[in-house]
Order: sequence, then structure tokens, then C-alpha cells
Amino acid sequence: MTDSITRYDLPQSAIPRRWYNIQADLPRPLPAVLHPGTHEPIGPADLAPLFPAALIEQEVSTERYIDIPEEVREIYKLWRPTPLIRARRLEKALDTPAHIYYKYEGVSPSGSHKLNTAVAQVHYNKAEGVQGLTTETGAGQWGTALSIACNFVGLPLEVFMVRVSFEQKPYRRVIMQSFGSTVHASPSENTEAGRQILAKHPDTTGSLGIAISEAVEVAVKSGGLKKYALGSVLNHVLTHQTVIGQEALAQLELAGEFPDVIVACAGGGSNLAGIAMPFVHLNLTAGKKTRILATEPAACPSLTRGVYAYDFGDAIGLTPLIKMHTLGRGFIPPPVHAGGLRYHGMGALVSALYEQGLMEAVSVGQVETFKAAMTFLRAEGIVPAPEPSHAIAGVIREALEAKEAGEKRVILFHLCGHGHFDMSAYDAYISGQLSDYEYPQELIDEAIADLPKVDEPKPAS
Amino acid sequence: MTDSITRYDLPQSAIPRRWYNIQADLPRPLPAVLHPGTHEPIGPADLAPLFPAALIEQEVSTERYIDIPEEVREIYKLWRPTPLIRARRLEKALDTPAHIYYKYEGVSPSGSHKLNTAVAQVHYNKAEGVQGLTTETGAGQWGTALSIACNFVGLPLEVFMVRVSFEQKPYRRVIMQSFGSTVHASPSENTEAGRQILAKHPDTTGSLGIAISEAVEVAVKSGGLKKYALGSVLNHVLTHQTVIGQEALAQLELAGEFPDVIVACAGGGSNLAGIAMPFVHLNLTAGKKTRILATEPAACPSLTRGVYAYDFGDAIGLTPLIKMHTLGRGFIPPPVHAGGLRYHGMGALVSALYEQGLMEAVSVGQVETFKAAMTFLRAEGIVPAPEPSHAIAGVIREALEAKEAGEKRVILFHLCGHGHFDMSAYDAYISGQLSDYEYPQELIDEAIADLPKVDEPKPAS
Repeated sequence: MTDSITRYDLPQSAIPRRWYNIQADLPRPLPAVLHPGTHEPIGPADLAPLFPAALIEQEVSTERYIDIPEEVREIYKLWRPTPLIRARRLEKALDTPAHIYYKYEGVSPSGSHKLNTAVAQVHYNKAEGVQGLTTETGAGQWGTALSIACNFVGLPLEVFMVRVSFEQKPYRRVIMQSFGSTVHASPSENTEAGRQILAKHPDTTGSLGIAISEAVEVAVKSGGLKKYALGSVLNHVLTHQTVIGQEALAQLELAGEFPDVIVACAGGGSNLAGIAMPFVHLNLTAGKKTRILATEPAACPSLTRGVYAYDFGDAIGLTPLIKMHTLGRGFIPPPVHAGGLRYHGMGALVSALYEQGLMEAVSVGQVETFKAAMTFLRAEGIVPAPEPSHAIAGVIREALEAKEAGEKRVILFHLCGHGHFDMSAYDAYISGQLSDYEYPQELIDEAIADLPKVDEPKPAS
Repeated sequence: MTDSITRYDLPQSAIPRRWYNIQADLPRPLPAVLHPGTHEPIGPADLAPLFPAALIEQEVSTERYIDIPEEVREIYKLWRPTPLIRARRLEKALDTPAHIYYKYEGVSPSGSHKLNTAVAQVHYNKAEGVQGLTTETGAGQWGTALSIACNFVGLPLEVFMVRVSFEQKPYRRVIMQSFGSTVHASPSENTEAGRQILAKHPDTTGSLGIAISEAVEVAVKSGGLKKYALGSVLNHVLTHQTVIGQEALAQLELAGEFPDVIVACAGGGSNLAGIAMPFVHLNLTAGKKTRILATEPAACPSLTRGVYAYDFGDAIGLTPLIKMHTLGRGFIPPPVHAGGLRYHGMGALVSALYEQGLMEAVSVGQVETFKAAMTFLRAEGIVPAPEPSHAIAGVIREALEAKEAGEKRVILFHLCGHGHFDMSAYDAYISGQLSDYEYPQELIDEAIADLPKVDEPKPAS
């Protein structure tokens, strides 16, 4: 019964030895990153208060491959390679001729893909003598990952956790504390940025943008002792995640298949980039034609309803200006349960893929998302996090389309994490308290009108 | 760097094809199971209201191997084989010459080893036309596993969940409901047994024994439509778990090692039996000398402070009488956080191992247990459930003893589940609210004095 194999494992020796950097292959290079005050292109010195030199170098690198340090690969061995699984029971439940595969990053100690970049970032900070890190977290997945990574090398970590998640997910707070981190509900009274927001909106549920402002402020004011770490959006973060797609490619080879379409949810873009970039590489350089499909929440639709413009990465305006798909830094998303997707912007690399016609995007409502999650968990047994459940909704659309068309379609999707800390969202869904939320156009218009006015630099010729 | 391999994987084709039944090899056979009323040895007909014929047959079988049905193996493929991991970082943290390996069952969809028997039990019930199942759950791990298994074949399930866990672990309730189960806090008003206990002790935190009474009552009163499923204690349950030890043996061969000692926590005995029985087999038949070490909570010490006597499996006295290590069915354990270990008795097979000198046992307090859990999670990244954290405490004792003696000692332990749903216990520990609890001898004496008076049947010669 060779037909019934459902899991494709790789040995530890097959953990990738380098990250793939799509900046080497983009048809049009990324627009320059601009200084928040002068609007001039920034240099490494401008980022030095926030990041170690090695990561700044990776941020702008156009080298196709970046070697993974041996110390990082050693820690990757705690959970990598992750499994690729053929979702035969889901296929049967959907009665579809499609072949559905998922790459499951929920087996990592932090329960999501975030640990891939956390371990890398901590490594470079430690190597350059940084004394501590600050960060923000939405759903708690990034904060958990960075807490675990910092614990492994003994680097203290301060986490600003979006208030709505802090309240909805006390277990996430405890897990970060168990690994030795200090956790604040954001906005907090600990920073100028936090106090400023609280004065204006004392009842705010918080947002990733606000939490970023707080974490950045603490790092900047530390006089170089502490640096800041971001779990998505930035180029180097997205690049670190490409171990996922590289492994998936090798595992699909074991299965004798190649994907027609890759589906991943998109918040800041790192989980999508992680699985998709190595396949975009083959589209760009080897004549492959894999479709890349981003799924985002209807409540926070930066790709499908935002604009491609220069904006700040945080809510206050402390970070450099990045050209990206954005709903405006003033956008405060509703408390949708997929905390990891509640971000006003989209990473520059993923935004560029979309602008350059290398990727598609759709938005999905909460109800369709949780309905898809229930279909998946009842078939495959794994409880998916709300974020990748958006991808599952996209997968089900694709699988039913394939059924309609009567075509075999090979679908690869990224199950970037489990939902063990998200059961309050499932509770809301099964008790009928969860409804769709379409963010009103006037609020989006308002936030976009507030974008910084920037004269775009001419592209380098 | 072949030296740095830390994970030993097996392909799906290596999932065991049969369970190992230690009843074939026990030096002295198990004492007969007695009727609760007549105290005479029971026959299959007495168990028929509770279990399907195939499982009753397995319960008393002395065949060495029982074939695993192909449908069960197909579902096992969703998570089996599970990984065997060398805990190199833990070894380093303890500065020990011991080699520490753990078999990790937390990768199963239910997050613990319980799914191994859940899938098997559901299969046999479904095959014999049973219309629905009832069960109890302590920590929620068994209820989750049985919910997932029932969902896979569309069998309705009613779960009686120990009240203290129901309150401490709302996410466990939600996960069972997500898979379609009905969940009651036990004791409940739904059964005669529940009402009886509530009348006497309205504020009781509940116990596994009480919850078993309720689940058994519902099955018995269904007139054969519903049957009952138990997650531990019974012989067939322990036998189903032997896939764990069989895989571990093959994986240790890949690592070129053989265990000097196997450590597992013991509540009803299934996680210990699962990893240990295939090695006890080699001790009994192939001259091997692996020590088996059971670790149990100081708050519920059925092996180290209980008696070996006939007792009921439940709190009320509905089940047959089983000769086992017990604290008496009236024993209501304190609300220690390892819900899965809060049971007054110990499975007959594990009790027999202990009585026949084939196993050692120690008890461990809560504080040492959580201290051990923290040491483990900080080294290996995985958050262990409180139950196997008792095993980790035992492992650390062994590893430090090996260090003291300056000897290489190969330690295998069973990490039977993750602690993602147990973070409230970690919260209590890190905030200093968790203390040791040594159950008072007078309460144990009292419960033991209440044991049924049984004239033991003469052993078959």
C-alpha cells in the first residue's frame, strides 16, 4: 500500500544550509527605505540603534543565498525538518480530485514557524554583544518564539503584547514568562508611545503597530545596550523563513509531485514568504508556473483593499518609511481572533510580489475561516491556529474549484501553527458568538488619507 | 557531525503491526477479576454491558501479540511513528555523563499518547454496531483523544470531566466540543451517581473515580446502545499503548543504544506500560536488565503508599473488583495539577509488575516536578504536561546519580504529552502559589479501611 503514505519526513542532515533571498531575483528591485524625518534613503547607520550589523546587511542584501550559521542549524534540529503531510482525509471530506499537501510548522517548540527567524535573530544579536532584546507580539506566537530563542542563549527579553491578546490568551503570557521573559500589555505606561495612545484612547484593545512603537522606543532609549527584533514584515525575517519552502520542495519530490498552487495566509508576510519564495524562484528562473495565493482577513485587508505607498512600520511614526501595501499606520483593526494578522501593513517583499504580478490575493471573513478550520480539524485531527485557517479557507475554495473543473490540482499550503492557545476563538465560533466583520471603507479612507506625504525617490537605473 | 544527530525518525511503514500483550509472559498470572456483588470471578457476559466483545477478549487474552487492524494503522499514520529525541541540551544543562532519550507522544493530534488506544477502542465499538460512547476525563487528555477518535468514525461521545479540570482547563472543554462531543462537569446532575455525591459533598472538586461512575452508569442504563471507554487502567488499554515502546526500541537501535533505565509517570499505568512493556518482555525472555522506574505524585501515591488489594475501579462501586495497588475507592485526591494522575488505583498489569519485582516506584512532590519541568523546557524548548513532568523529575534524579557515580547511564523516558493546556499550573508555579502536598496517612488509612472484604480466589494451578 505505497499509495497510502501520508507523511514525508527528511533527516536532520537535510535541514537547509542557506536561506534563499528573493531580492536577487526580483524583476524590479525594492524601492529604497526612507528616513522618517528627512524622507531620504537611509543607510546602515540609521538602522544601527535597532538591529545588529549582520541583520542590516541581510535586509538590503541582493545575494541569492545566505549561509545559515552552524549554531542556528544546531538549534533548528530541535524541530526541523518539519513534516510535509498529504491531507488525504480532507481530500475525501471535500470529495475533490485535488491533491492537498500541508507543511506543518506547528511541531516547533513555540508551535509556529516564528522560531525559524527568532533563533537566527537572537544568534546575530548575541554575536555582536547585545545585552537584551525588545519586541512586540500579537497573537503571542512571535513573543513565544523569541522567548524560547532568547532562553536558549541567555539573552533577556521584554515583550509588549497587544492588549486584546494579553487578555484573551493568558496562557501565552505564562509560556513567555516560563521561558524567562518580561511581558507588558500594550499600550503600557512604560513608554512615551504607550502613554500617548492611552491618553487618547484609554479603552483601546491595542494593535501590533502600537506595540511595535513601544518596543522600538525601549531599544532606542537604551543607548545601544538593547536592540529590537521583529517577527515579520522585514526582508531578513522573510528570508529566514525560506527553510520552510526549501524543505517542502524536497518533500514534494519524495511524493513525486509539484504544486500548481501554494496557499498561505498573510499578515506581515513571513509565513507566506517562507513557503512560497523558493517556488517563486523557480517561477522566475526555471520556467515553473506555480500560482501563489495569499489569504488575508476581510477585517484587515492590506493587500486587497490597502494602497501601495510609503508608510511607517509602527503606529506612531518612529520607524523608517517602507513602500508597502498598507491600510495606514493609524488603522486600528477590530479584535478579530487572528491576532497575528492584525497589522496595518504588509512586508515590502510580499507587497512587491503582488505589485509585480507574481502573486494573487483574496480576503476571507471570520465565519468562512472558522468553518474551514472545523472542516480541517475534523478530517486531519490537528487544531489549526486562526491565522493559517485563513489559508485553509483558500485551500477549500481551490479544492472545490478543482472538483467543479474535474481537474487534478496539486495544492500546497502552509499550516504555520497549531491553535492550542486559541481555543477561546473556537469557543466563540462553536457557541455562535463569532460573526463576519467587513472593515468600513470610510475608516480605511481616513487612515490612508493620513499617510505621510513622500516624494518617491527615482528608482536606481 | 554525525555525533550531533538528535532525532530518530521511522517511516510510516515501521508503525508496529501488532500490540504486545505482557499477560503472555508474566511470571505469575493476573488474579481473577471479581463480580462486584458475588465476588466470584467474572466472565465475558458480565462485561458485555460496558465493552464490545473484541475488547473483552483482549482484556483476558494471554496471546503474546494482537494484530492491529489495518483501519487503526491507517489512522495511526496521522501522527505515528512519533519521534525519539536525544536530549543533548538537557544532558548539558545537568552536566551529566548520562545519555537521555525521550519518546515524544505530544505530536499526536490530541497532544498525548491517549489517542493510540482511543482509535483502537472506537474501531472495535464501531465494528460491533455500538451507537455511542461514554467516558470520563481527568486532565482532559483522554476526553480529547476519544473525541478525536470518535469524530473520525462519526460515533457520538458523552464526556464526564472532573470538575476541577473542567474549571481549570476551559480550553480542553472547547477542544472536545470542537470535535463534536458533549461535555459535563463531574459530578453532574445527569446521573444517580453524580447526584448522590453532590448531595454528600456539594463543593467537591470531583475525581476520576466519580467521573467513571457517571460514565459507566449512562452506558449500563442505555440498554446496550451505548458502551463505555476507559483511557487507562485496563489490560487492553495498556496493551494498545505498546506501539510506543516497540517504536522506541527500533529507534534506539538506530542510535546504537539500549536503555539502562526507563522512566515514566504512573496514574492508571497506560503511559508507563506503553513504553516499558516491550522492554520488560526482553528482561523476561532475552536476559536484558533494563530497570523500569515509575514516578507518581506524592499527593496520590497508589504504588508507594497504597495496598495491593481487590478494589472497585470507580468511586461508587459499580465496576468489577480488580486486584491492584489502591488508596481505596473513597480516596479523593487533592486538586494537584496533574489531573491525569489523580486516580485512586493503578492498572492490574502495572500493579503486578511492581508486586512481582519487575519494576521500581518513587513518589515526587509538585514543587520538584515543576522545577524539573522548567529545567526541561528551558533546555529542550518543549513545554511538558504536568503528568510526564513527574517522569522528568525521576530522570533528573537518575542523571545526577549517574554524574555522582561517574557512569554513562542510558535513560529513556516517556514524554507522553505537551502542557499547552496546562499553563494555569505553570502560572501557579512561577508566581509561587504552588506548594508540596503530602497526603495525610490517616486519610489513606481511612480510605483503605473501607476496601471491600473479599475472600481471594485461589490462583489457578
